[in-house]
Amino acid sequence: MSTATNYKVIGTRPIRHDGTDKVVGRAVYGGDVRLPGLLYGQVLRSPHAHARIRRIDISRAAALPGVRAVVTGKDLPSVADKRVELGEGAVSLKYLRDNILASDKVVYKGQAVAGVAAVDLHTAEEALALIEVDYEVLPPVVEVRQAMQEGAPLLHDTLTTKELGEDTGRQSNIASHLRHTLGDVATGFAGAAVVVEREFCTATVHQGYIEPHNATAVWSLDGQLTIWTSTQGAFTARDQISSVLDHPVSKIKVVPQEIGGGFGGKIPIYLEPVAALLSRQSGHPVKLIMSRSDVFQGTGPTPGSYIKVKMGVDQSGRIVAGLADMAFEAGGFPGAETGAAAMCVFSCYDIANLQVDAYDVVVNKPKSAPYRAPGAPQAAFAVEIVVDELAEKLGLDPVDFRLKNAAREGTRRADGMVFPRIGCVETLEAIKNHPNYQIPLKPNQGRGVAIGYWFNIGLRSSVSASVNEDGTVNLIEGSTDIGGSRASIAMQFAEVLGLAAEDINPAVVDTNSIGHTDVTGGSRVTYATGWAAYEAAQDVKAQMILRAAKLWEVSADQVEFSEGSFLHKSDSSKRLTFKELAAKLDETGGPLTGKGNVQPNSGAGGSFAANIVDVEVDPETGKVQVLRFTIAQDAGKAIHPAYVEGQMQGGAVQGIGWALNEEYCYNERGEMANSSYLDYRIPTALDLPMIDTVIVEVPNPGHPFGVRGVGEAPIVSPMAAIANAIYGATGVRLRELPMKPDRILAATQAAG
Amino acid sequence: MSTATNYKVIGTRPIRHDGTDKVVGRAVYGGDVRLPGLLYGQVLRSPHAHARIRRIDISRAAALPGVRAVVTGKDLPSVADKRVELGEGAVSLKYLRDNILASDKVVYKGQAVAGVAAVDLHTAEEALALIEVDYEVLPPVVEVRQAMQEGAPLLHDTLTTKELGEDTGRQSNIASHLRHTLGDVATGFAGAAVVVEREFCTATVHQGYIEPHNATAVWSLDGQLTIWTSTQGAFTARDQISSVLDHPVSKIKVVPQEIGGGFGGKIPIYLEPVAALLSRQSGHPVKLIMSRSDVFQGTGPTPGSYIKVKMGVDQSGRIVAGLADMAFEAGGFPGAETGAAAMCVFSCYDIANLQVDAYDVVVNKPKSAPYRAPGAPQAAFAVEIVVDELAEKLGLDPVDFRLKNAAREGTRRADGMVFPRIGCVETLEAIKNHPNYQIPLKPNQGRGVAIGYWFNIGLRSSVSASVNEDGTVNLIEGSTDIGGSRASIAMQFAEVLGLAAEDINPAVVDTNSIGHTDVTGGSRVTYATGWAAYEAAQDVKAQMILRAAKLWEVSADQVEFSEGSFLHKSDSSKRLTFKELAAKLDETGGPLTGKGNVQPNSGAGGSFAANIVDVEVDPETGKVQVLRFTIAQDAGKAIHPAYVEGQMQGGAVQGIGWALNEEYCYNERGEMANSSYLDYRIPTALDLPMIDTVIVEVPNPGHPFGVRGVGEAPIVSPMAAIANAIYGATGVRLRELPMKPDRILAATQAAG
Repeated sequence: MSTATNYKVIGTRPIRHDGTDKVVGRAVYGGDVRLPGLLYGQVLRSPHAHARIRRIDISRAAALPGVRAVVTGKDLPSVADKRVELGEGAVSLKYLRDNILASDKVVYKGQAVAGVAAVDLHTAEEALALIEVDYEVLPPVVEVRQAMQEGAPLLHDTLTTKELGEDTGRQSNIASHLRHTLGDVATGFAGAAVVVEREFCTATVHQGYIEPHNATAVWSLDGQLTIWTSTQGAFTARDQISSVLDHPVSKIKVVPQEIGGGFGGKIPIYLEPVAALLSRQSGHPVKLIMSRSDVFQGTGPTPGSYIKVKMGVDQSGRIVAGLADMAFEAGGFPGAETGAAAMCVFSCYDIANLQVDAYDVVVNKPKSAPYRAPGAPQAAFAVEIVVDELAEKLGLDPVDFRLKNAAREGTRRADGMVFPRIGCVETLEAIKNHPNYQIPLKPNQGRGVAIGYWFNIGLRSSVSASVNEDGTVNLIEGSTDIGGSRASIAMQFAEVLGLAAEDINPAVVDTNSIGHTDVTGGSRVTYATGWAAYEAAQDVKAQMILRAAKLWEVSADQVEFSEGSFLHKSDSSKRLTFKELAAKLDETGGPLTGKGNVQPNSGAGGSFAANIVDVEVDPETGKVQVLRFTIAQDAGKAIHPAYVEGQMQGGAVQGIGWALNEEYCYNERGEMANSSYLDYRIPTALDLPMIDTVIVEVPNPGHPFGVRGVGEAPIVSPMAAIANAIYGATGVRLRELPMKPDRILAATQAAG
Repeated sequence: MSTATNYKVIGTRPIRHDGTDKVVGRAVYGGDVRLPGLLYGQVLRSPHAHARIRRIDISRAAALPGVRAVVTGKDLPSVADKRVELGEGAVSLKYLRDNILASDKVVYKGQAVAGVAAVDLHTAEEALALIEVDYEVLPPVVEVRQAMQEGAPLLHDTLTTKELGEDTGRQSNIASHLRHTLGDVATGFAGAAVVVEREFCTATVHQGYIEPHNATAVWSLDGQLTIWTSTQGAFTARDQISSVLDHPVSKIKVVPQEIGGGFGGKIPIYLEPVAALLSRQSGHPVKLIMSRSDVFQGTGPTPGSYIKVKMGVDQSGRIVAGLADMAFEAGGFPGAETGAAAMCVFSCYDIANLQVDAYDVVVNKPKSAPYRAPGAPQAAFAVEIVVDELAEKLGLDPVDFRLKNAAREGTRRADGMVFPRIGCVETLEAIKNHPNYQIPLKPNQGRGVAIGYWFNIGLRSSVSASVNEDGTVNLIEGSTDIGGSRASIAMQFAEVLGLAAEDINPAVVDTNSIGHTDVTGGSRVTYATGWAAYEAAQDVKAQMILRAAKLWEVSADQVEFSEGSFLHKSDSSKRLTFKELAAKLDETGGPLTGKGNVQPNSGAGGSFAANIVDVEVDPETGKVQVLRFTIAQDAGKAIHPAYVEGQMQGGAVQGIGWALNEEYCYNERGEMANSSYLDYRIPTALDLPMIDTVIVEVPNPGHPFGVRGVGEAPIVSPMAAIANAIYGATGVRLRELPMKPDRILAATQAAG
């Protein structure tokens, strides 16, 4: 591990390699894929939130002129149900397939029921109307506490609760219940001087990426399946497609396209297997693109939640006990990622006695998907409001109170993991010392603070590099680039070899061209794929040393690399820059390629992000205006500070939307009533102040350059910080998201 | 180097990986490239064989509605002329550019003068007619001996003859003259008992690939240029494009498409820079595809030639002296690859005294391009007819005479190189022992034999491999696959690891994704890229051993790989197949990739191919029917025998066409009169017998599996063998190609 901090490339702000093409509209997205003989597809979706499928008749649709293929759940291979490992833990194959094309039941409105491919989009649409589905409509349940009740409509005949890892055999909508304990909460609360216990609800919200899901497939007669798609992980998509279609990974090539946002929502697959089946049946390439309404109703939002948090503080201001009881709405199929929420809920604090319970509950909503730090924002919304209330009761500054209890190296997390070096304290200090923390407030204005944590992940990454004769380097990698990671990966490569960022040509390639690389998610890309690039650069360097040695007719140990040049140790007249030596590859042995493969399963190094938010609440309308928003975050080492800031700002903005406006509105039939961007309101530039950023750098000991992932932590605390600010402005504590005008007005009026 | 000959995969005949897609029409060729906003281009070509360009007015064309860009030679960067290294030796940058878009002169009919991009093909075509070019028409010269004469029209003001490497400063159409000498020819001939001296002419013929040239370019605003094209070498294309456009290689990505034949003709570039300039000017992707007539008139055929050969034999039947005087038609610009002809002309024989002279001469024909063993067929046509005549004069069987004089290990080639182990004798013996050599002939039938040699090349190749968790391997390489090389490369990889050919997924990738890989040409791919695959497999094997060692908690030297399994040396219960171990990659360190880079500049190992041809000549029409055609060839080791046979058969068929039918017919204005497949006659299946093949295997000591390239040697001897057979049938020796009916009739009638 290098300990150098005198970087030449790292920490600078070069123009990203993919920047121009994206700005001028030349970048190729999934929607741009053109193939000879391409057919266009549409997906029929359930109009019911909960229904049994008695029969599907596709005959009239199939007979429509111009229709080339019609597929339903029956076209998915019928194998006995099993659990398959897909990166983030085992999932039921039946549920995975039913979420692609329903078999016996539909469990949410918008669930895919059939697919059609035709010569044009309109014919395909017309054909959808000709598919006859005989539904037995069942009562829906769309709220987590209702779904947990005895007598609630049951979504799945086969679902039995897994209680602390053991299958109870008891049929229920509760898929699983997990618990973490640390110390003894009863004893902890017994020693507390002040205890606060509160309940919280958060709404179902969508990631809100601009680009809808899309997939184009070609199923060749020899079984080779090629899929172009907008995905956060080409290999993860490949694995899922393989499982759903029961088709070997080696027969599937996923070609990731540019991606117009994902935030976790483009980790699951939806259209890919449908496009594949339609291609197999028609013998043509088939392209599917979702409408915005399809995206809202047919893809995974983040779970709504009900959370109860209780915390106790002793006389000295130390938090001595914490209890969290959290129930998450998995949507139509299990898998609300309760584990992450349980891991993060109390992790900003050093608390000796903890109990965390988390329930994964199915409801008649779209199967939830990861959304930036999945589970942590809901948990932080609860904990950080309780912490704020505790600080207030103790008469302490809310930042000072957090600092007093902050997690640090050696603190034990609820799940038992002990923190290595982390930047929780430094992040809080950055907030405390920020000038925005001192700006005087006016009437109806309030200030809130909060902090959030995300653990980040490592997983597998692979990078290959090839040296051009002009001393530039072509670099290929498997991490789809959402937030500028081509640049952050290339820069780590360049740093090792004394090259400029512009000397590196990074490219994201398909699953046949690079080693297994896990998702762009878990804030892992700049960390893990960047590390793979570091290893690839070391590999190139070692080989270049051999070339110099060959040229100078000395042994390799007589050559050293320093400051971008290869030096002859005992003849100072012999010195070649990287570019000079690259020009001599042809005469010293031919092409030179390097590779780096990593799997840093521990050491990703968590990141903390904290906010100062100032709001003004209109007492007449209840409308909240965010006046100032400050975020400080520990990046470990910011490779490209502009893109770190971009992540911080993006997470903050999504947090503001989640806090104030966003929610899935359901009617009594379990139908989403606002599945468009006209009715589902994400923040626009007009709604937002400048997001002020402070990059904190507490190097991660688990990375050669000290990098910590930065993509997720910024979304964790904004909802709580805004709630605390609204309290400052109104004297009313809101504990339900979104904190929309009517809700604020109702609360302030109730409080008088 | 492995000496194993007990191969499991090598020598078998699996279905090629790209087979199904090619058979069903799914393979993606350059013509299939679709991009958003694509414009369609056309190229204006000179109607004159020789003219000075006074002025080009594009204003009317540019003003035509729908036209988006018009470019001429003026749009190419104007830098001082220099010589650039492009793989096959230095070439003049001015000539290279003038062959893309003419500047001051046109030197052949069909030379590109301007390019147009428009919203559709018809608008582009209409625009061509609006470009006004003011030509000063000059007298053309289209035949090599005429072009060499004093007073011949001079093609280039700046061309001076290079005489044996020295610039004479003398203006001429003779670009260069090279000479090889061995021993002393005068002394040699003085000791000869029989001497034969003859003159030969061969016509300009085209490679006759089915797919026309094409190129699609996108020039992004940040200078990144991406080109999709049908090419024999993506990196070679990249280097040429870089030189012509004066644009750095690191800003150019060439994406090679499937290729519908090349045979050397798709090594040079034509449309690529034009498409690039049109894209830069229009801001859109631009696609260009040649018509068949464009291909004939605007791309490089093989040079026509005039050759004089003199050989002498002593009393004992040993060839004691050889003299060759060869002049090749380079076409409009220098570069007829006379070096290869000079290297090959006498190389089937062990002759102590040799003199070889070769002239590179410009004529007003398209700039010649490589065509399968470039130069060697013309030379063999001359030598092998003289050898046949010598054998006849000595009363010896023509195969016995060749065997007596055959080159073998230690024989010195005209250029001084000493042969390592070669298969000349074995190939001749295969012919001699073939049953087809004994079939009785009927009246008007004749039998001819001949042998040919091609030296093959090594150059640079790069392969990367990635192991899938199911134990299959994705393999990427940079050699465009013309004749089944995905299979022959994958099989060498599979052999090392005890896998099946079907376990490997080979793919040809773009220049940004793999190390520098030279052209698919010189019969180098199965040899050099196959070797790179061997090295990549060794790299994978070494890493897999480390994984097994990690799993078993032993040191790597305690693990061995044998018969496709990893074995614990001291615990026979521990044994994992490659696939079993691949399934454990995730638990032993993550992704595993391997790489192989080679540059075997010596050791390619030449290949010899010999023919027995039986023909029947219709005495009334002069039409030649090929009755039987046998080819024996040394493949070193045939990796995939079916594709070796395919190369042998393909070369034989092209040789039959060259021998009997093919030629560029010119009128007095220097215009090709037969630029279509209706008038330029290549053999059809109806014209051909089954081509019988005998694979000879004399392992090449310069390759791990003994491979010799097989792509070119088969085209060297057929023309001579057929001429010798026609002599057998008619008693008349033809020394001019093609040996078409009217020429045969004229010769037989003249002979009475």
